[in-house]
Amino acid sequence: MQELAIDEVVAAACGRARATLPFLARRSRAEKDAALGAIADAIVLEAGAILEANRADHDAARANGTSAAMLDRLRLDDARLQAMARAVREVVALDDPVGRVVETTLRPNGLRVTRTRVPLGLLAMIYESRPNVTAEVAALTLKAGDAVVLRGGSEALRSNVAIRAAVAHGLSRVGFPEDAVTLLASTDRESIRALVQTRTVDLAVPRGGEGLIRFVTEHARVPVVQHYKGVCHLFVDRGADVTMATRLAVNGKLSRPGVCNALECLLVDASDAARLLPPIARALHEGGAELRGDEASRSLVPGIAAASDDDYGREFLSNVLAIRVVDGLDGALAHIARYGSEHTEAICTSNPAHARRFEREVDAACVVVNASTRFHDGGELGLGAEIGIATSRLHWRGPMGLEALTTMKWVVEGTGQVRD
Amino acid sequence: MQELAIDEVVAAACGRARATLPFLARRSRAEKDAALGAIADAIVLEAGAILEANRADHDAARANGTSAAMLDRLRLDDARLQAMARAVREVVALDDPVGRVVETTLRPNGLRVTRTRVPLGLLAMIYESRPNVTAEVAALTLKAGDAVVLRGGSEALRSNVAIRAAVAHGLSRVGFPEDAVTLLASTDRESIRALVQTRTVDLAVPRGGEGLIRFVTEHARVPVVQHYKGVCHLFVDRGADVTMATRLAVNGKLSRPGVCNALECLLVDASDAARLLPPIARALHEGGAELRGDEASRSLVPGIAAASDDDYGREFLSNVLAIRVVDGLDGALAHIARYGSEHTEAICTSNPAHARRFEREVDAACVVVNASTRFHDGGELGLGAEIGIATSRLHWRGPMGLEALTTMKWVVEGTGQVRD
Repeated sequence: MQELAIDEVVAAACGRARATLPFLARRSRAEKDAALGAIADAIVLEAGAILEANRADHDAARANGTSAAMLDRLRLDDARLQAMARAVREVVALDDPVGRVVETTLRPNGLRVTRTRVPLGLLAMIYESRPNVTAEVAALTLKAGDAVVLRGGSEALRSNVAIRAAVAHGLSRVGFPEDAVTLLASTDRESIRALVQTRTVDLAVPRGGEGLIRFVTEHARVPVVQHYKGVCHLFVDRGADVTMATRLAVNGKLSRPGVCNALECLLVDASDAARLLPPIARALHEGGAELRGDEASRSLVPGIAAASDDDYGREFLSNVLAIRVVDGLDGALAHIARYGSEHTEAICTSNPAHARRFEREVDAACVVVNASTRFHDGGELGLGAEIGIATSRLHWRGPMGLEALTTMKWVVEGTGQVRD
Repeated sequence: MQELAIDEVVAAACGRARATLPFLARRSRAEKDAALGAIADAIVLEAGAILEANRADHDAARANGTSAAMLDRLRLDDARLQAMARAVREVVALDDPVGRVVETTLRPNGLRVTRTRVPLGLLAMIYESRPNVTAEVAALTLKAGDAVVLRGGSEALRSNVAIRAAVAHGLSRVGFPEDAVTLLASTDRESIRALVQTRTVDLAVPRGGEGLIRFVTEHARVPVVQHYKGVCHLFVDRGADVTMATRLAVNGKLSRPGVCNALECLLVDASDAARLLPPIARALHEGGAELRGDEASRSLVPGIAAASDDDYGREFLSNVLAIRVVDGLDGALAHIARYGSEHTEAICTSNPAHARRFEREVDAACVVVNASTRFHDGGELGLGAEIGIATSRLHWRGPMGLEALTTMKWVVEGTGQVRD
């Protein structure tokens, strides 16, 4: 038997997944919710097989010298498996985005014009170690009426195969085609390249480290919604409430340092820094943060280490926080325009005019006034589950929930109208 | 002096255009409308220079043996120039999409979450002969707060340069940076390739023949919203009002055969074709249409010529209409799924259940019930001017008016909230 080229294998997988789209597009909310329920049940029912596969992945990864952080992301246990099934069930509770009317207008000639939401089509999801993504993305895409081809990381392949088997069993139990959720068995970079160059894919969503995302962007011949790094700033304005500013800085940096909406850089207005910075820095230090600042901040707080140039604009994903004293709101806006990543930018201020200018002039997916950057998240913003946070500008920006997985259709209803 | 590579020239032009974005994003509606007014004035004021440049283009094109249809699209005269200025002024009357609130929710923790529209960024517009596109696209992108790099066809270069000069003079008169609307002087295919591979472009919009669009899609490294061909069908259902069906068929095919929302194929339910097809075919024939049908339709109407296989799924852009007798609604849906272009699909029916199924099951940017396919147009659907009709699924589908030229921003306003 001749070996098929990876491009043909991937194109065939995409073709099979794509063929399920007309079936999925016509399913009612009740039918789709029943499928999600069956998937959640199957995950619980097949917990033994999933955990065994995960143990094999975990052992192999440890033997390969994988870092402790990555091993933790890879690892499943009973509690995490239950959480995975629960995440699928939570999608059941979300409104069906398909058929939602965005807008209806009655034209002067009597035509009724309705813009409604319809499934986006075939998604390609490329992700790294966390195997729970397999189940969560399957649930979200199915609810939106989309098919998905998943390409997970090699370190989690056994786990992903077992989870996808449970998904397939759930689908099949309610009469849905298993190919609606397809997993590529090949986990080398060539399989990613082939996937994002298969023209039948409507949207590719890479989720993972910067290297993965750059690889996808570099090779893609289909649309990509990117989830680049989050270099999030908090600007503490002159006259800000120091207690609030401290709380926002500590929560932003320390509540979960390894995520994309964590704080990476604190900016303080020079004209009020002597009052603001010392207590904020003290609380951050006591909470376990490692502070690196410019000269001005170090002259105010001797415990701050010297920041190097590339500490600004850097996503530490750790307890390190860069600090800089800036020349008022304009200085903060200039710093953010230069070093920000268009992800999440926050201001702590008691000046409403400054809040409005910050909201308007900062170019980012999410701008936060007097709250923690950590709120930039689908669940926290009221969308429910998300497949990631988009920092690209096309199609969608911010947390990608169900609506982001749809496109639109115009429906024109008349009584025989023709155009002049 | 060393010649710069085209990639560097284009990247520099994009960089200059992109640098105007912060300025544009902060302009009020009144300021943007003043700029559009100044551009319209400048077009009228500089009519002499524009028409002279157009005459040179026209003469050169004629000398090159350009087709009459293309010469007509290229040609400007006083009336067309006035229409161009009027089109710019019509954008003044459209609501500013920037700052429009899509949704506001108050979260249980008191956070106010607002999703608003913000400018999309830097557009690349690639188009062919019609020089009025230069002014219209400039007006739409400016109103949306976007910058644009235009790359028009070689046959219209002198006209485009003169129109862009008027745009620049208008911009400069109200203190707007001229680089917000940039025109590439190079008109070979290499300039298109360089433009759609310049990463600072947020969206490329090709408008023109299928060859141009395929070239852009093939080479693009930035997101593209496509405007492929329109192979639009009208399905006449059993029991349909024959007078209405005739009117829709004649209007769809003959009111303007050369456009993308014109009718290319008529489908008639077999069980009622003997009643429906002869009078519809007669009216089409009398109106000047050339009919090509399958055997069933030819047996009902002897004047119909035999259709070849590739007459189905074909965009004639002329007075030719393909006809096919199909097996009811299911037969029509299957034909459209196979041969349609996801542009505009219409049904003429007196059966509301069939109307609903057609609306739901046809996968197209626009589905029309009991009206002409010709209504799929930004103006007719209530959007005002458009830069084209998107048949791709990402970002936008259907007529691309001002809203399609924006992206979104999430604004979160709190009173010191932090995340648990």
